[in-house]
Amino acid sequence: MQIQDLVKHIKEKKSFLCVGLDPDLDKMPSHLTDSPNAIFEFNKQIIDATHTFCVAYKPNMAFYEAHGIEGHVALQKTISYLNETYPKHFTIADAKRGDIGNTSRMYAKAFLEDLDFDSITVAPYMGIDSVEPFLKVDNKFTILLALTSNEGAKDFQLKQMQSRNKNSIDFEEISLFEQVIKTSQTWSNAHRLMYVVGATQTEHIQSVRNLAPDAFLLVPGVGAQGGSLSQVCKYGLNENIGLLVNSSRGILYASKGKDFADAAAAQAQKLQLEMADFL
Amino acid sequence: MQIQDLVKHIKEKKSFLCVGLDPDLDKMPSHLTDSPNAIFEFNKQIIDATHTFCVAYKPNMAFYEAHGIEGHVALQKTISYLNETYPKHFTIADAKRGDIGNTSRMYAKAFLEDLDFDSITVAPYMGIDSVEPFLKVDNKFTILLALTSNEGAKDFQLKQMQSRNKNSIDFEEISLFEQVIKTSQTWSNAHRLMYVVGATQTEHIQSVRNLAPDAFLLVPGVGAQGGSLSQVCKYGLNENIGLLVNSSRGILYASKGKDFADAAAAQAQKLQLEMADFL
Repeated sequence: MQIQDLVKHIKEKKSFLCVGLDPDLDKMPSHLTDSPNAIFEFNKQIIDATHTFCVAYKPNMAFYEAHGIEGHVALQKTISYLNETYPKHFTIADAKRGDIGNTSRMYAKAFLEDLDFDSITVAPYMGIDSVEPFLKVDNKFTILLALTSNEGAKDFQLKQMQSRNKNSIDFEEISLFEQVIKTSQTWSNAHRLMYVVGATQTEHIQSVRNLAPDAFLLVPGVGAQGGSLSQVCKYGLNENIGLLVNSSRGILYASKGKDFADAAAAQAQKLQLEMADFL
Repeated sequence: MQIQDLVKHIKEKKSFLCVGLDPDLDKMPSHLTDSPNAIFEFNKQIIDATHTFCVAYKPNMAFYEAHGIEGHVALQKTISYLNETYPKHFTIADAKRGDIGNTSRMYAKAFLEDLDFDSITVAPYMGIDSVEPFLKVDNKFTILLALTSNEGAKDFQLKQMQSRNKNSIDFEEISLFEQVIKTSQTWSNAHRLMYVVGATQTEHIQSVRNLAPDAFLLVPGVGAQGGSLSQVCKYGLNENIGLLVNSSRGILYASKGKDFADAAAAQAQKLQLEMADFL
């Protein structure tokens, strides 16, 4: 997918909503959980009900890996269904991978080529050669963790570090997450980078925008985790919109009854209507 | 597994060798690659040939995920074979996972409970709540990335950051990888932490030891990546030995012929004999 296609889709739908596909058997409607095909059946009904209101889907790999081979089959079916039925929707493998170069190449092949996701989330800790193999894949995107929505973001991401400015012998103090954005923006194919920035971190979204004015930001944490959509939009929107706001639990588990798909659609539409106001 | 069992096994074998099980069809003997069961068959023969000389096995998940469901089946067969046939060997899921709390719990279940690995490698970027769910599992170990062996380690891990000392208003400057060790040593169940420290980073192993005197270090990068065993031992050994040194490619692909398992055993024995000198 090209970035212009994503932007066009957002404008058509008046939505920059991403639906997180995190299927949890304990929270799913009980009439589905008896089926051996429960995870895919749940995802399919959620996708069919919500696709009008969103532009992206993000399965988190942990929820599939937790079910071993059955989970892997459900993941394959889900991404195939998305690519065949809703090819305009942007797909994100929320995998948070990252390893030495020859190993990251394996992950890039698995997620961006074989499974054919449009993008993958990647952890930045191991630096350039752990990210490059993902960035090399044409028409695909690498979504680097920058500032996450969880409590532990304080432990390292928000710590101050020394950074030397270009053409200067002076150091400035910036946070680790700012260093991650600043450094990664200098890498080859940086136009294929997006960043994860938690909706709970609105006071920092402005500095993310200063460091990466053109990049799309994937923003989790609206809803269940307490982030505010208006604050995210105030600081995060750019000329190309530049935002994908994710909601998982708030949509998927809006109802545990037979009406779960309708309830999910209603929640997705509610978010879409709020988003339309900011576009 | 208890840490004393690992230490006892190391002393019996006079070896702290970990064999990385990174099966790559392009490098494997051609007489195996026609079999649909090639990956497991390769691993099994490598394990049977090398188990006398090593105390740990570390499959890197990327090499299995690259083969979709077949890869997952091969991984399951490999860990089952290890747990049934060589239960004294310490097993490491080299997965480099890490996500928000409720998601990390899924990964902990998948790798430490369902697949029943003794340990898993985890990326520290997302902080405490991304690591806690792994640390909570009894008799299992969490191996946190600290200072990796690759070029990209310079990008963030070796950057200086500010750290406030306990009971002091002063700041000191330490590297990000030192901050990761220092902070994580204060977490609950820190006795279940081990750290990844690349063999190419010998000048820093001493500071790792100062910050985590009792922790086991998993050291990749000896061999193919150029690290020196004697330097690693000089700075890394502690009272309980405290080292697992990994070799993957140097052992697995010592020969591409029908004698690949014998050649792997010879390489493993060579490393074991070098290690015996340091014990």
